[in-house]
Amino acid sequence: MPTKPAHRLEAVPNPHPDRDYEVAMAVPEFTCLCPMTGQPDFATIRIRYVPDQHLVELKSLKLYMWSYRDQGAFHEDVTNRILNDLVAAIRPRWAEVTGDFNVRGGIKTDVRAAYGKRPEIG
Amino acid sequence: MPTKPAHRLEAVPNPHPDRDYEVAMAVPEFTCLCPMTGQPDFATIRIRYVPDQHLVELKSLKLYMWSYRDQGAFHEDVTNRILNDLVAAIRPRWAEVTGDFNVRGGIKTDVRAAYGKRPEIG
Amino acid sequence: MPTKPAHRLEAVPNPHPDRDYEVAMAVPEFTCLCPMTGQPDFATIRIRYVPDQHLVELKSLKLYMWSYRDQGAFHEDVTNRILNDLVAAIRPRWAEVTGDFNVRGGIKTDVRAAYGKRPEIG
Amino acid sequence: MPTKPAHRLEAVPNPHPDRDYEVAMAVPEFTCLCPMTGQPDFATIRIRYVPDQHLVELKSLKLYMWSYRDQGAFHEDVTNRILNDLVAAIRPRWAEVTGDFNVRGGIKTDVRAAYGKRPEIG
Amino acid sequence: MPTKPAHRLEAVPNPHPDRDYEVAMAVPEFTCLCPMTGQPDFATIRIRYVPDQHLVELKSLKLYMWSYRDQGAFHEDVTNRILNDLVAAIRPRWAEVTGDFNVRGGIKTDVRAAYGKRPEIG
Amino acid sequence: MPTKPAHRLEAVPNPHPDRDYEVAMAVPEFTCLCPMTGQPDFATIRIRYVPDQHLVELKSLKLYMWSYRDQGAFHEDVTNRILNDLVAAIRPRWAEVTGDFNVRGGIKTDVRAAYGKRPEIG
Amino acid sequence: MPTKPAHRLEAVPNPHPDRDYEVAMAVPEFTCLCPMTGQPDFATIRIRYVPDQHLVELKSLKLYMWSYRDQGAFHEDVTNRILNDLVAAIRPRWAEVTGDFNVRGGIKTDVRAAYGKRPEIG
Amino acid sequence: MPTKPAHRLEAVPNPHPDRDYEVAMAVPEFTCLCPMTGQPDFATIRIRYVPDQHLVELKSLKLYMWSYRDQGAFHEDVTNRILNDLVAAIRPRWAEVTGDFNVRGGIKTDVRAAYGKRPEIG
Amino acid sequence: MPTKPAHRLEAVPNPHPDRDYEVAMAVPEFTCLCPMTGQPDFATIRIRYVPDQHLVELKSLKLYMWSYRDQGAFHEDVTNRILNDLVAAIRPRWAEVTGDFNVRGGIKTDVRAAYGKRPEIG
Amino acid sequence: MPTKPAHRLEAVPNPHPDRDYEVAMAVPEFTCLCPMTGQPDFATIRIRYVPDQHLVELKSLKLYMWSYRDQGAFHEDVTNRILNDLVAAIRPRWAEVTGDFNVRGGIKTDVRAAYGKRPEIG
Repeated sequence: MPTKPAHRLEAVPNPHPDRDYEVAMAVPEFTCLCPMTGQPDFATIRIRYVPDQHLVELKSLKLYMWSYRDQGAFHEDVTNRILNDLVAAIRPRWAEVTGDFNVRGGIKTDVRAAYGKRPEIG
Repeated sequence: MPTKPAHRLEAVPNPHPDRDYEVAMAVPEFTCLCPMTGQPDFATIRIRYVPDQHLVELKSLKLYMWSYRDQGAFHEDVTNRILNDLVAAIRPRWAEVTGDFNVRGGIKTDVRAAYGKRPEIG
Repeated sequence: MPTKPAHRLEAVPNPHPDRDYEVAMAVPEFTCLCPMTGQPDFATIRIRYVPDQHLVELKSLKLYMWSYRDQGAFHEDVTNRILNDLVAAIRPRWAEVTGDFNVRGGIKTDVRAAYGKRPEIG
Repeated sequence: MPTKPAHRLEAVPNPHPDRDYEVAMAVPEFTCLCPMTGQPDFATIRIRYVPDQHLVELKSLKLYMWSYRDQGAFHEDVTNRILNDLVAAIRPRWAEVTGDFNVRGGIKTDVRAAYGKRPEIG
Repeated sequence: MPTKPAHRLEAVPNPHPDRDYEVAMAVPEFTCLCPMTGQPDFATIRIRYVPDQHLVELKSLKLYMWSYRDQGAFHEDVTNRILNDLVAAIRPRWAEVTGDFNVRGGIKTDVRAAYGKRPEIG
Repeated sequence: MPTKPAHRLEAVPNPHPDRDYEVAMAVPEFTCLCPMTGQPDFATIRIRYVPDQHLVELKSLKLYMWSYRDQGAFHEDVTNRILNDLVAAIRPRWAEVTGDFNVRGGIKTDVRAAYGKRPEIG
Repeated sequence: MPTKPAHRLEAVPNPHPDRDYEVAMAVPEFTCLCPMTGQPDFATIRIRYVPDQHLVELKSLKLYMWSYRDQGAFHEDVTNRILNDLVAAIRPRWAEVTGDFNVRGGIKTDVRAAYGKRPEIG
Repeated sequence: MPTKPAHRLEAVPNPHPDRDYEVAMAVPEFTCLCPMTGQPDFATIRIRYVPDQHLVELKSLKLYMWSYRDQGAFHEDVTNRILNDLVAAIRPRWAEVTGDFNVRGGIKTDVRAAYGKRPEIG
Repeated sequence: MPTKPAHRLEAVPNPHPDRDYEVAMAVPEFTCLCPMTGQPDFATIRIRYVPDQHLVELKSLKLYMWSYRDQGAFHEDVTNRILNDLVAAIRPRWAEVTGDFNVRGGIKTDVRAAYGKRPEIG
Repeated sequence: MPTKPAHRLEAVPNPHPDRDYEVAMAVPEFTCLCPMTGQPDFATIRIRYVPDQHLVELKSLKLYMWSYRDQGAFHEDVTNRILNDLVAAIRPRWAEVTGDFNVRGGIKTDVRAAYGKRPEIG
């Protein structure tokens, strides 16, 4: 369904792999295209994860998010693809991706997907 | 009780059927007719579901919601019918429909119905 | 204690009796008379129920609520009588009535009563 | 990764070691440098801990936080390092450090790490 | 249009007629009947006035407001009638009456009328 | 541009024509059709006026608003037409109509038009 | 109308009589008795004034306010009497007294009175 | 500075040119590119105008806004260009355009420009 | 009335005396003693001024405010004394001091005094 | 007083010099050093201006603000210096700079300075 490959998420070593801790990232400036009509869609993407041996590198995440700007992507698919790409890049102990999409056709859509079982933090 | 058939909800394949994830949709512009008096009713319809093999297609959902514009429908019935039509169209693992109806006769009515048992998400 | 009989609550068949679902109704324009002084009282009445074979018909509920306008009724009594009348009319699987009465003599009174055991919804 | 050692956190004796109690500190004026670009980053650091035999001394904490002003530090690393330095300095029964970093590249990042198991307080 | 005369507003001497001062009263529990359908209407009535030789007596105002309970009254008419009755009873230097009526037929109506020119207060 | 004539606004005599007073009405349940696409539009219509010899009758206003349900109407046109129809029906001393239309195509539109010069009220 | 004389307001010399400045005092714990029924009334009394040669002494103001506890006093009267007593005690350049009385008989009453013309402050 | 021409704003006849009235439009989903770095920028564009002989057509406005998606544009320039294009397309009696741009480099920028003198509306 | 002299306010040269500009300072941690009872009073002191040839030095202001800790001071007097001391120390073009004192004896007191005429700033 | 020169503000040509319009910029991440103690200070700097022939270039503004990170600067001085440097760089028709500095020594300080007379915008 994607019309071109997304920019690659880069992994950097987790400097504290011996500890379960949580990273939360919000991307309020996400935009892609509707795969049916080609019209622009807008969303806030939220990522939460507990890293294992790697972290996601911030600049590559920014470029990865920008790379959706010209792609057609269904709301449900794009949320799961971001989760899949994150899991493939850094193999976290747990991860969750939420997409809060702006109203289209009078309908507001939110999608939430997760990977693994969330460890207790403190 | 419906005065004409609703527009058909279309299913599209779930691109990530191997994962339990949640889709939440809000339709604040729902309107139908009172089956007793023919007067217009207004509501916000909220849908949450965990898909199995199919998703509900967004444009067909919009048209489906619009198709109630000229139908007579009791609050309790319309909420359950939307749930039934959703279940028939996409056979989700779990689904919930809530109808928040505007005040009529000085009375505010909300109806909530669900199908299946909600899986844990992450 | 009531000075005249209340308007009768009408039952209509539940079009979806095979499913446990919840109906919530709020009546912010309830008024009756103080049985001690004859002075007007004002309240918001809230009803929640899970129907069995019948629903309460909305227009009869409106007229039922209006019929308290000229009745004397203690706060605690009126809340329980509404619950009793609802149970007698539609035999729900579960029902709850809350009366939020306006301040009288510098005192705010809320009364909450329930019938049956609430089923889990979804 | 740090470009110079941080100012040392000082410990002072806990005058009430026989009791589990909680200390919460917020540092809204934290700033460091991006290790990739050298550009300034800003964050609010929050610390909560249950002391054992020692407390962290307030002035040394202020100087410790200031010592990051000219250091390069990844968001995830700096949050864990503050936790490690706190644990090394005062050996608390439990501690949690949260870093709420300002938006960079359109992305807001929060990191939360903890040490030990939080005792019940009251 | 009124179906029976309202309870009479009583005047009491203004103990401070040598001074322009303002009295503001709010009556959130006003109810009357729709003259077309006989159905109950609900409103908040607000009164502001600068007294001349007389004040309106509080208990008579309460009974006056209660006396609308069984009267048919259009929104625009009842607001002006309250103003007229107030002016007839106490001849204030200035007065204003506002009626904030609850939604009927999906329409919310507010009416505001005034008598005389408002003096400056202090 | 309208596809069929709107229900007629009825005038009733103003029972207090000797006084300038203001009537304000809000209609949050307005819906019409887009004249380009036939898709439903939703708006809140607000009316304020100072009556002369006539008031607008509430039930006819409700039916008038409902009569737009099946009409095609541009946002700017429908707001001005409601003002024109109000002026034609009751010849107020002053009137203002505001249309707050829901988002379409990612764009939120509000339109405000007025007739005559607003008299001072008290 | 007062059933016994109020405690006397004491004046203290204004240490800065050469300057127009403003003093604002709020008394949220005012209580008196209804002169008709003997029931307790509650209010917040607010005083603002620009002193001339004297200030009102704070402890005497507190005792003055407490002295209303067993007095019968109409809302309009008590507000003006406090203003009169303040003016008699300290002859301010300007003063304003506001009484915000709690709901009685479903009616909320506020009274505001002033003395003199307010000077500009800075 | 623009890298390609924007989609053309279409004018439609103003059906009520004999009256000064105001149209307000908000576009929260505006995005363009930074002309220095090529990175995406995001803004909310707000337009207010009093039409003369023409209105701006809503769909062309949507496409016009979308056409900035791939253009490089300085914040100050794009706000003024939108105003210029609007004025060229519909020659309004008055118009104002505001651009609220998201934070870049830790700096939030808003730009506001206007054309003509705003007429009084009612 | 002060029981000992306050710490002296220090002046530093205004580096920009050719321009009217405004400095605003808030001191939320002010405490002094009640001159009648010796009990502690708490206030927020706010200072605004337009400097002429001098600014007030921040550390001396802090020490000046601390020096009231053991002084008896009436609310009205302390506010005016701070204004007088500020004027004596830096001869501003305009200055205003406000004291927001905490409730004492159930009474909340605010005092506001000013010096000179406020210049227009930009 | 500055310990080293600030990064230079760059001017870019104003693409719309024939029109008075307003640019507003907020910099919430400003930090400098206290010239007395060397301790870090934090502020939000706000700039508003009406350009003449030039705009301030955004990246140079970012670097200019960062260049204060290692400078000693009094609150009043730094606010005026930013205004002076802005005026020297772009000669605006009007400009205003506000510095909202964080609490130091228990005192919160805001400084506001302006240049020229603000033109009316639309």
